Amino acid sequence: MNVDGNPYRTIWLAADADAVNIIDQRWLPHRFEVVQLRRYQDGVEAIADMLVRGAPLIGATAAWSLYLAALEADRDNLGPSHLAQAAAELRAARPTAVNLAWAIDRMLASVADCQDLEQQVARLRTAAETLCEEDVQTNRSIGEHGLALIRRQQDQRHGEPVNILTHCNAGWLATVDWGTATAPIYLAHQEGIPVHVWVDETRPRNQGAQLTAWELAQAGIAHTVIVDNAGGHLMQHGLVDMCIVGTDRVTCTGDVCNKIGTYLKALAAFDNDIPFYVALPSSTIDWTLSDGLREVPIEERDSTEVSEVYGQTAGGKTQRVRITPAASDCANPAFDVTPARLVSALITERGVVDASEQALRARFKRVH
Amino acid sequence: MNVDGNPYRTIWLAADADAVNIIDQRWLPHRFEVVQLRRYQDGVEAIADMLVRGAPLIGATAAWSLYLAALEADRDNLGPSHLAQAAAELRAARPTAVNLAWAIDRMLASVADCQDLEQQVARLRTAAETLCEEDVQTNRSIGEHGLALIRRQQDQRHGEPVNILTHCNAGWLATVDWGTATAPIYLAHQEGIPVHVWVDETRPRNQGAQLTAWELAQAGIAHTVIVDNAGGHLMQHGLVDMCIVGTDRVTCTGDVCNKIGTYLKALAAFDNDIPFYVALPSSTIDWTLSDGLREVPIEERDSTEVSEVYGQTAGGKTQRVRITPAASDCANPAFDVTPARLVSALITERGVVDASEQALRARFKRVH
Repeated sequence: MNVDGNPYRTIWLAADADAVNIIDQRWLPHRFEVVQLRRYQDGVEAIADMLVRGAPLIGATAAWSLYLAALEADRDNLGPSHLAQAAAELRAARPTAVNLAWAIDRMLASVADCQDLEQQVARLRTAAETLCEEDVQTNRSIGEHGLALIRRQQDQRHGEPVNILTHCNAGWLATVDWGTATAPIYLAHQEGIPVHVWVDETRPRNQGAQLTAWELAQAGIAHTVIVDNAGGHLMQHGLVDMCIVGTDRVTCTGDVCNKIGTYLKALAAFDNDIPFYVALPSSTIDWTLSDGLREVPIEERDSTEVSEVYGQTAGGKTQRVRITPAASDCANPAFDVTPARLVSALITERGVVDASEQALRARFKRVH
Repeated sequence: MNVDGNPYRTIWLAADADAVNIIDQRWLPHRFEVVQLRRYQDGVEAIADMLVRGAPLIGATAAWSLYLAALEADRDNLGPSHLAQAAAELRAARPTAVNLAWAIDRMLASVADCQDLEQQVARLRTAAETLCEEDVQTNRSIGEHGLALIRRQQDQRHGEPVNILTHCNAGWLATVDWGTATAPIYLAHQEGIPVHVWVDETRPRNQGAQLTAWELAQAGIAHTVIVDNAGGHLMQHGLVDMCIVGTDRVTCTGDVCNKIGTYLKALAAFDNDIPFYVALPSSTIDWTLSDGLREVPIEERDSTEVSEVYGQTAGGKTQRVRITPAASDCANPAFDVTPARLVSALITERGVVDASEQALRARFKRVH
């Protein structure tokens, strides 16, 4: 998507192929900064410190980091354990998104039968490029299937904008391009369907206020930022036509793990008979899990994400401020699980699917 | 309650009775500042600009502001219209809390048959003092009735702390003393019952993170600040035993208007079979309304409350920072309505009452 009118992706190989470029998302919307990953450890840190975030982009970053690890091994004559070490560190960088493990497994499989380091480099480069291209195509497909759902709402709005609520950032910044939850919105906008997006700010890290709002502003799409507390009230008053969110992991039974607070919005949508959709590439489905509440590991992040807020002063300086008393503890669970019963449907690259084991297995041809 | 070990109320007459002292709550927890209201307009501004907030304290501030208006009228020989003007301005200072109109009506009734300005001053002083004393006693009674509910949870906890979630600040800072939602907690703590409070930060103004957490820290009560998104997840995992919140207006049918986001927590409590209690003085009941969603006016506050966050820098300076893109709009509805069906019970000064018209009318002897 465009940044100040210039097309960007969130991750791309540097011109001389010895480094990978990413957008350091920690400073948006106040500063747009591109940084280079030169070693696989840069990739581990970029994931753990959330320079990049969003399940698909975490996977893509891990993929390119393995390419960087192979480059290092080839250049510095390191043994095959270097790649294994990189894979282990990347796998542990963040615990919740299943795309991370999925991308790593896929990358390793591409070199499973190959001992030659130079050949490993070439294969991993191709595998990472393919994974990223597929992500773009997958999101585009999600967008087309989701677009049909927006059109359905539009038919009832008689020319008024379709009001879509989203939580956190499942936008192009969370993927290689297009986004998952935002792909249908971008396509609708391109087709001239009037849309308006309610953007949950998404405390503690404010990915909605900082990233989704920025994306939508860059794309010229009407949107309004709200506090996470406001969505239920808007739904009660008929101001939300549909919800679309992303996800970090979906169980084979359709339980949805996503950014903390998603469950509360799903409850409110259910209570007000508003469709609640979850957009995802099928790589986000964890076929090994069937009980989201019991089985998905929920990352507990640093309490300073709660006690401190990042923003810009009137003087234009970026600054962190503490909002809590120094004597008060904070807790920071980063994700929650929305039970399948509250999910109207999953929007995947293979179409709109019921959030149920039967429907998921049928659509993705997965057997027990 | 105590501040740094010294007993305080939130509002009190100055020593020479020509002014009223309040705590300017906008700078907590970073600065504790007492300011004087010298004219009734100071009271209007203190309410509108939220130097004071919380339905009972808004009422008490309006009461003392009318005393100040009478003082001015007496001193400067102004006509009876001065008091009427003050009442009108105070009534319009904030739209949602019903205690404001209730306190003003009660104060005006105390001088309805009295034309003498000096006598009006004396009567209004007595009326304001009485209203404040009654608020303290009312909250203490709410505390005792709520304490029984905490004891009931304690019986099931086998010595582990009772985990209570609260939203916004319905603490002593929202009243003259004790608070509504916090009164049972303070009493439980005084009686040695182990309690732990989950404090919703309560965006946009962060009254939880800034006021409730500060109160509890001052009282030495175990607590943890969480983002507003986290409560549902905690409830799903058995980490919340009960919720207690305050309210700005309750309909005669038991619908509860309270700080934006309360409805989402009530939905989650209901979904997880956790008792959801609302603590209130009966002055918060609006006997003229029966449909909270349709009839309670919801204040829309300035969008900068959403786009900017107040806190303290590492250098100890208090500072506002903007968290949203400059190009993005924000919306800021300040309250929402929790339907009576989601409320386990109302904790009033006359005991624990079902959130239903029949129960409320029976307990308060109100007929149609």
